[in-house]
Amino acid sequence: MSLIGEYDSKNIFAKILSGDIPCAKVYEDARVLSFMDAFPQSKGHTLVIPKVKARNLFDIPSEHLQNLIHQTQRIARAVNTSLEPDGIRIAQFNGEPAGQTVFHLHFHIIPCWDAGKLKGHASGEMAAMSDLLETAARIKAAL
Amino acid sequence: MSLIGEYDSKNIFAKILSGDIPCAKVYEDARVLSFMDAFPQSKGHTLVIPKVKARNLFDIPSEHLQNLIHQTQRIARAVNTSLEPDGIRIAQFNGEPAGQTVFHLHFHIIPCWDAGKLKGHASGEMAAMSDLLETAARIKAAL
Repeated sequence: MSLIGEYDSKNIFAKILSGDIPCAKVYEDARVLSFMDAFPQSKGHTLVIPKVKARNLFDIPSEHLQNLIHQTQRIARAVNTSLEPDGIRIAQFNGEPAGQTVFHLHFHIIPCWDAGKLKGHASGEMAAMSDLLETAARIKAAL
Repeated sequence: MSLIGEYDSKNIFAKILSGDIPCAKVYEDARVLSFMDAFPQSKGHTLVIPKVKARNLFDIPSEHLQNLIHQTQRIARAVNTSLEPDGIRIAQFNGEPAGQTVFHLHFHIIPCWDAGKLKGHASGEMAAMSDLLETAARIKAAL
């Protein structure tokens, strides 16, 4: 599968952006949306996505990407302040062989703790929305 | 260990920036340096680092971070064009529990292939400099 391809408007993040599917929102402005990953690898696993239609790193204009990393840093700081993890991973996957499962560009913010390994990416264990909303509220309060 | 701390000028990337330790260089300008990871998780594993002193995502000014992701995108595009992987991971680790081993902020560009799993991060298998230089030359030619 090539990394260059058409954007599929039926992907699940497009449906979250249009409001057709709910999410535990952390932050939204005219250009980005941030929400809790529904299949978290750890408590506080947060996603940041651009509103521009981009499959991956190779079809987003640099200017939008720069704004996206600016917001990712801001939100990661709030994750750090509110949840006090021992470490934080930032990850962005391009193409299925790299682990991409939703074909709308997204940055992962994944808190890590000394005790306890991360769960696998998109491992199939869906979180309870009530837990996600509670964590989102804590992060939001630190933004 | 806190994610907020003093920059240690004796870290290995500081020594690469000062020229005290060699690297297989892909790109350099006044603000960033890109070179092959000496402990590659896959063929073409490339790093991009800022010249500003920053331990991690939490102590780099946004403006430098934005330039860094701009260059990371450019270099990832050249990795994609020159090596034609099936996917590419972008990763950035903050703190030891998240997998950070060198305390100078860096973005990983990790090509992935359908066939063959990635090696572990900093798994201890050092690559031959001749192989790294050959791959760096191919990526440079596509920049």
